[in-house]
Amino acid sequence: MGFIMKIGIVARYDRESSISLTRDIIRYLHDNNVTVSIDDEIAKVIGSEYEYLGVKITDMESDIVICIGGDGTILKTQNALSSKKIPILSINMGTVGFLTEIEPEDTFKYLGKLLDNDYFVEERMQIDITHNGQLKSALNEVVIMTRQPAKMIHVEISVDDEIIDVIRADGLIISTPSGSTAYSMSAGGPIVDPRVNAILIVPICPFKLSSRPTIIPADSEIVVKFIREGKKAFAVIDGNDEESICYKDFMTLTKSSDPACFVRFKKDFYSRVHEKLTSG
Amino acid sequence: MGFIMKIGIVARYDRESSISLTRDIIRYLHDNNVTVSIDDEIAKVIGSEYEYLGVKITDMESDIVICIGGDGTILKTQNALSSKKIPILSINMGTVGFLTEIEPEDTFKYLGKLLDNDYFVEERMQIDITHNGQLKSALNEVVIMTRQPAKMIHVEISVDDEIIDVIRADGLIISTPSGSTAYSMSAGGPIVDPRVNAILIVPICPFKLSSRPTIIPADSEIVVKFIREGKKAFAVIDGNDEESICYKDFMTLTKSSDPACFVRFKKDFYSRVHEKLTSG
Amino acid sequence: MGFIMKIGIVARYDRESSISLTRDIIRYLHDNNVTVSIDDEIAKVIGSEYEYLGVKITDMESDIVICIGGDGTILKTQNALSSKKIPILSINMGTVGFLTEIEPEDTFKYLGKLLDNDYFVEERMQIDITHNGQLKSALNEVVIMTRQPAKMIHVEISVDDEIIDVIRADGLIISTPSGSTAYSMSAGGPIVDPRVNAILIVPICPFKLSSRPTIIPADSEIVVKFIREGKKAFAVIDGNDEESICYKDFMTLTKSSDPACFVRFKKDFYSRVHEKLTSG
Amino acid sequence: MGFIMKIGIVARYDRESSISLTRDIIRYLHDNNVTVSIDDEIAKVIGSEYEYLGVKITDMESDIVICIGGDGTILKTQNALSSKKIPILSINMGTVGFLTEIEPEDTFKYLGKLLDNDYFVEERMQIDITHNGQLKSALNEVVIMTRQPAKMIHVEISVDDEIIDVIRADGLIISTPSGSTAYSMSAGGPIVDPRVNAILIVPICPFKLSSRPTIIPADSEIVVKFIREGKKAFAVIDGNDEESICYKDFMTLTKSSDPACFVRFKKDFYSRVHEKLTSG
Repeated sequence: MGFIMKIGIVARYDRESSISLTRDIIRYLHDNNVTVSIDDEIAKVIGSEYEYLGVKITDMESDIVICIGGDGTILKTQNALSSKKIPILSINMGTVGFLTEIEPEDTFKYLGKLLDNDYFVEERMQIDITHNGQLKSALNEVVIMTRQPAKMIHVEISVDDEIIDVIRADGLIISTPSGSTAYSMSAGGPIVDPRVNAILIVPICPFKLSSRPTIIPADSEIVVKFIREGKKAFAVIDGNDEESICYKDFMTLTKSSDPACFVRFKKDFYSRVHEKLTSG
Repeated sequence: MGFIMKIGIVARYDRESSISLTRDIIRYLHDNNVTVSIDDEIAKVIGSEYEYLGVKITDMESDIVICIGGDGTILKTQNALSSKKIPILSINMGTVGFLTEIEPEDTFKYLGKLLDNDYFVEERMQIDITHNGQLKSALNEVVIMTRQPAKMIHVEISVDDEIIDVIRADGLIISTPSGSTAYSMSAGGPIVDPRVNAILIVPICPFKLSSRPTIIPADSEIVVKFIREGKKAFAVIDGNDEESICYKDFMTLTKSSDPACFVRFKKDFYSRVHEKLTSG
Repeated sequence: MGFIMKIGIVARYDRESSISLTRDIIRYLHDNNVTVSIDDEIAKVIGSEYEYLGVKITDMESDIVICIGGDGTILKTQNALSSKKIPILSINMGTVGFLTEIEPEDTFKYLGKLLDNDYFVEERMQIDITHNGQLKSALNEVVIMTRQPAKMIHVEISVDDEIIDVIRADGLIISTPSGSTAYSMSAGGPIVDPRVNAILIVPICPFKLSSRPTIIPADSEIVVKFIREGKKAFAVIDGNDEESICYKDFMTLTKSSDPACFVRFKKDFYSRVHEKLTSG
Repeated sequence: MGFIMKIGIVARYDRESSISLTRDIIRYLHDNNVTVSIDDEIAKVIGSEYEYLGVKITDMESDIVICIGGDGTILKTQNALSSKKIPILSINMGTVGFLTEIEPEDTFKYLGKLLDNDYFVEERMQIDITHNGQLKSALNEVVIMTRQPAKMIHVEISVDDEIIDVIRADGLIISTPSGSTAYSMSAGGPIVDPRVNAILIVPICPFKLSSRPTIIPADSEIVVKFIREGKKAFAVIDGNDEESICYKDFMTLTKSSDPACFVRFKKDFYSRVHEKLTSG
């Protein structure tokens, strides 16, 4: 890794603490001769003197993107950065932060380390979702649900052309290891270490009581086919992006060739997991 | 029980087999000098010679109502009969029938027994739901869910004025013992024998991993309060009826004074449960 | 309730804090003219001046028994008091106390209330277990397990002469509502409010994946029959007492006519449950 | 793969059908000029004319071992063959066969294919367990349990020197993907495709309600340390082999360098899983 010259910033703008920290970071980076660009949505909010730094996340061409917010902000940012593999350094302004790396009070200590090149980059697998010729990527998960409340989806799931299950359920989660500690876990899925090269298939409230979460090799091709006439469903990608699905549609899911990249200073996956497990 | 003089009929009209069985039953009952009334929706479908028998379910004044369909038809019928305590005899035209009593091929054998007074009436507890001054009853369950897909509801649950839990979850099921083998079971709830005088509270995909289904005395007053600003939710009663819920709303749930009544010829709750448990 | 004249004491004697609190309580009760008897096992340990107070728990004839320890001490004491219905006041010297009522530092505040008759008695259902002509009672649960590690038991369960399930599993828990927050919960059972008149049947690691905990009316007769030749099993009652079981044996379980009785100063079942749910 | 010259046979000898099939297979192989050796335990049972073929499983030096029995027989055989990587062809004489390949009635059809070299070899990961300087291998799982019924084990689990959990539970399962559909599944573990390079850690009836099964990379080193003084535990490897464990002992688990090898004629992992899921 060469020294960092350009940094992009994305931040929540619904909290004063996040906005004010953003201003401090911009000043710090300027003082350290780093070129800064800012998500244009926050650029408008933090003050007119910064507006000229505004740029769309999708257009950010920086060495690192600093993300100030919770897991939702990171997911939105990564979905926008898409295949660019720009490492994200995240500062936790959310509630439970699984993907976030540092707490606000430690910001400048770690920014110092960052500019000193004293960090490492962790890669996290993403899933590519192809539906109706369109390609999207998920860092955490795709959730397939019905449009009609209290009705079930009815899908056939194949892995590498072998039908592995036909499921009637409230929904279906197809998750990366990163997503295993998010929504998948509430639906009864196991914790999957992010280093495991696998994809989780987790039914939500399945009608068949013997249904179980299934872990399949990440290098498989998963096809989910909608087999019940007249039912409408939709897919939610990383809690943000929505996709409508019709009868006889199918969705193909494979491991992305491009991982998401995160700036890390320490290894602590399991201690975060335990914080979450006992939180209420 | 005195001898049966008047019978109402409710039937699915989206299946030819159901319509044709309805015609046969009407003829059989006429031949046996029973006064027949028919749900006016099916009266229109089965032929003009029957139209004069048509009446709204809510207006049926009969000794027994025969219900031809699946659990959905029974729930709809019972919800309409409401507090009238008219015993329902159900003939299974659905897929899995938990509340249904007889299979189509045995119809006339059991109608004979019915007219001979050779049956018993099983009572099943219902739940009264009060919300915004309105009262509704559920035979199976009330499901409270979010209006925004992939977002959670945030509710406080009290039992007899003691707060028992504050829950963030995809949804919340409040179920009678009858409902324990329906949707509640897919969400991880236990089987509750219909003779147990209790109500189930079952979270759907709870955020807090240590959440568990809770069984409380049926004679309690349950209050569910919506504590998260800006979130919209809705309640679905017995899979049919929908109710919108706003922030700061609360919903009061108690055991109904009026049970639902079913015509039974045999005791077989557990053998039905096992059929369901192993079905796919 | 008349005023209290005689109090029995049972205490853990493997902890100095428990022994020293016992001495203080004896002195306090003497000063208040209460006749004291002590479990003879602790009488030997706390000092020769108290030995004359020693008596077997089974022989205690007192108005109240004070129990200093954790849930294990209470279960042992109640099992020994059996059908005498002497209310137990418990002081928590264990780790997680579900049945205990007061913390050590509050002992004398609550003893004052006790002697002032400012308390109420809560009754908790017990289960009678009949096996080979012998009768025992459980306050929490009976656990049936195999004698051979990593082998399964194979039992047929009937409720009021209806076979409700045939199960192969590591074990089977038959629990009161009080026991629902103990071992049953680790095996996946629901929380059952102690006021619900029901018994839980919870399989441990069942072979059949669609098995579910079942809640049955407490007024039923449950029969567990051992149907696999050559296998040996045993039953553990309230974590203490062991019973050997052979092929073709059966065990009959019914609600005890005598409840266990506890001295209470406040209603707080659910706040205790939540402490446990989030403890680690 | 060269043509097969030598075949070993291991079989259940507690069933006449298994013994008689063994005789028929020996004759068939002799007729086809294959050199046969037999597990000396069955050699004694099937008739004196075969006794000269008897050899210990550990001493079998053959191209293929045919295993006639259920999963238990296969596990015992593979444990004895250990690191030899001799492919096992298994004929199902058990109840549910997860590892078995062919049904008895198809024996000679598939033996023909075998001798024609019309098959493939599937490798399955094994786990090496090191305890007190001794090394053993598991094809399905290691189960760690307490020696005292109804008491818990108390262990600290590390993965690559990071403590991932401290657990109080009835037991702990450390399983390969092959084992995920065996005992691990009854304890609530997910289905893991045998091609996933991972190890499952699944607690049995954990005290901490938020505990979840965890999937870790197979290339990790897992250390399980016994931290509760005075408690005795034992480990059961593949349901057969037992190992005693004391306080302060630790057990190291890693992926074996030698996989188990199985003769396969078709890909059907998921259809077997579904047979099991719906079996009772």
